[in-house]
Amino acid sequence: MFFADKFQLRIPGPTPIPPSVERAMAQPMIGHRSTDASELVALCSNKLKPILGTEEQPLILSSSGTAALEACVVNTLSPSEEAVVIVTGVFGERFVKILERYQVYVHRLDIPWGTACSPDVLQAFLHQHPHVKAVFMTYCETSTGVLNPIRELAQVTHTHSDALVIVDGVSCIGAVPSQMDEWGIDLLVTGSQKAFMLPPGLAFVGVSKRAWKVIEQNQTPRFYLDLRAYQSQLNKKTTPYTPALSLLFGLKEVLRLLEEEGLVHVYHRHELLKNMTRAGIRGLGLPLMTSDEDASPTVTSIDGKDADWDVEELRKALRKLNVTVAGGQQYLKGQIFRIGHMGYCDPFDILSTLSALEIALKQINAPIELGQGVQAAQEVFLQHV
Amino acid sequence: MFFADKFQLRIPGPTPIPPSVERAMAQPMIGHRSTDASELVALCSNKLKPILGTEEQPLILSSSGTAALEACVVNTLSPSEEAVVIVTGVFGERFVKILERYQVYVHRLDIPWGTACSPDVLQAFLHQHPHVKAVFMTYCETSTGVLNPIRELAQVTHTHSDALVIVDGVSCIGAVPSQMDEWGIDLLVTGSQKAFMLPPGLAFVGVSKRAWKVIEQNQTPRFYLDLRAYQSQLNKKTTPYTPALSLLFGLKEVLRLLEEEGLVHVYHRHELLKNMTRAGIRGLGLPLMTSDEDASPTVTSIDGKDADWDVEELRKALRKLNVTVAGGQQYLKGQIFRIGHMGYCDPFDILSTLSALEIALKQINAPIELGQGVQAAQEVFLQHV
Repeated sequence: MFFADKFQLRIPGPTPIPPSVERAMAQPMIGHRSTDASELVALCSNKLKPILGTEEQPLILSSSGTAALEACVVNTLSPSEEAVVIVTGVFGERFVKILERYQVYVHRLDIPWGTACSPDVLQAFLHQHPHVKAVFMTYCETSTGVLNPIRELAQVTHTHSDALVIVDGVSCIGAVPSQMDEWGIDLLVTGSQKAFMLPPGLAFVGVSKRAWKVIEQNQTPRFYLDLRAYQSQLNKKTTPYTPALSLLFGLKEVLRLLEEEGLVHVYHRHELLKNMTRAGIRGLGLPLMTSDEDASPTVTSIDGKDADWDVEELRKALRKLNVTVAGGQQYLKGQIFRIGHMGYCDPFDILSTLSALEIALKQINAPIELGQGVQAAQEVFLQHV
Repeated sequence: MFFADKFQLRIPGPTPIPPSVERAMAQPMIGHRSTDASELVALCSNKLKPILGTEEQPLILSSSGTAALEACVVNTLSPSEEAVVIVTGVFGERFVKILERYQVYVHRLDIPWGTACSPDVLQAFLHQHPHVKAVFMTYCETSTGVLNPIRELAQVTHTHSDALVIVDGVSCIGAVPSQMDEWGIDLLVTGSQKAFMLPPGLAFVGVSKRAWKVIEQNQTPRFYLDLRAYQSQLNKKTTPYTPALSLLFGLKEVLRLLEEEGLVHVYHRHELLKNMTRAGIRGLGLPLMTSDEDASPTVTSIDGKDADWDVEELRKALRKLNVTVAGGQQYLKGQIFRIGHMGYCDPFDILSTLSALEIALKQINAPIELGQGVQAAQEVFLQHV
């Protein structure tokens, strides 16, 4: 299709990389114990603070997000202790898998996929399980596009238990507000390849004072994922093991870009991208998987299970147009598709994706009218700008 | 000093990145579950085989090398089992630390730093410890520049025990021969930021059939570092968690470069770099830390503890000339300095480093004659080319 390197990556991560970040990552390699590396590590950690919403020093791991989720488990829990996991999709399931691997006793709070967990439901569940040491929750559930009400869920947890609040924020932090100190989040994890506009390979972990007390006491064996090592080395402006330096070069530039745009404007932009996408999908008469209230600003799921066209055929047609959208995961495979709209994404990317979507739907003989989705999204744009 | 981005990074990793690898890493991001990503993962794993010297499928972890060393421990050993660690420097110590964290009973075979472990010494030690499940050894000990005789050490281990042979090859694989199948290495670990000419962030693990049998049975809890997950996903041409894709773009190009040069020529080049460096140091009348027999082709340690100039002052003078060499680690701090010469390094880099070293030595009033080191290295060059 025209140019091999000119395509639209509209999945919920990895996301496109801004050119200035590409250039930053291509800087010559430096020693990881050099003064330059120390300044880089310290600067990145400091500038992560407002994005996570914490005065504590965020930690930087060279790993994918899953390793950081595991770090939350092995640093705070011991075998046979109890934990609650709010399961709203695939990434809630991942917490369950990790916890069970370490013989933690898991109480699953299963919520229908595509719906957020309400604070009342969590409150009732916590009363049934008074001995839990931690409650694991997903801020944006990537597999469905649901944004859970983390602030309220954290509050309910603290009011009705002594459990730590542990949050997977991989697919939204940097695109949505986060005030971990104020909201009472004890551990907050995110990754580089989503709203941070970087390649995969870095994970960030915010840790509350309360969490540190538990971590210091915890006896579960861990080495690479021992958060104490990252903290003590960060106090010396370095990392315990060789960090992924080129990604740190990129992170510094990403943090500059986010600061330049202003976090409030970054969050507004993502709201706009969500609203345009949802309006566009509705304009084409396709059903959305989540309610407006539960929808994440970073990814939108479209329900295709009752359509008279095939979701995977649509994705194939889009790929031929050089547009990649995500399919469904696990039991949602073939039933939904997902449009990622986080990070280096602007309204014209959404209009372009919607127009490609219209063409692809036409090509597979779906009963839509060209231009209806784009027009609905344009109207949202005009109202907001 | 002249240009800020024009410097000589002569430490034993991270090492300089070739321009074509920088360009490869700057490719636009792709989905990690796309066909392109699958082809990339499969191709990289396949092309790692001759470099590790195995017919088994090498695994690719997104982490620093230390995480892969930990993977060797948690996938093969259980608490209170016994292991031997050959400690020839800092990275032998690291194996000890990881093993002790997981309550493995460690028998340390301490060898004076700067010397390789001889097969006879290991043989005698194994007879004293007949119940060990694994012998951990370091191929190149980065902290001293010693290359241990891995082939012979592996053979002795297999002849005199049933233990697995587990090798840290981080700072030499890709620069020195490795035949893990033929030599009987059961687990071989290396990283991206040394002879592989990439930024840090990837680790590679070769696993023998014999090791897989142990790994399948092992009950130690692990999630991100569970090698079974990497193997089963690699069989489907993918990775269990989002891999560091931009580093994989770079790895593909690195593997092409190594193939183009030819592994035999790559190894010869590193031998030449070692011989030029050692001749240059001798030409200046400075003592080398290791014997010719024990010296690694990737890094050379120079002993400055009896010199009438200060090692750290010399390193500072070199940094002002935009040349970075490594200092000593742990008790060697201030006693030695180390010149890295692996990866994207050619004879003229060594001549340039030696001439800068001569200038820096003059600046700190060391009793050397300008040109003596360079000349000795030039003579080695002329003999070999």
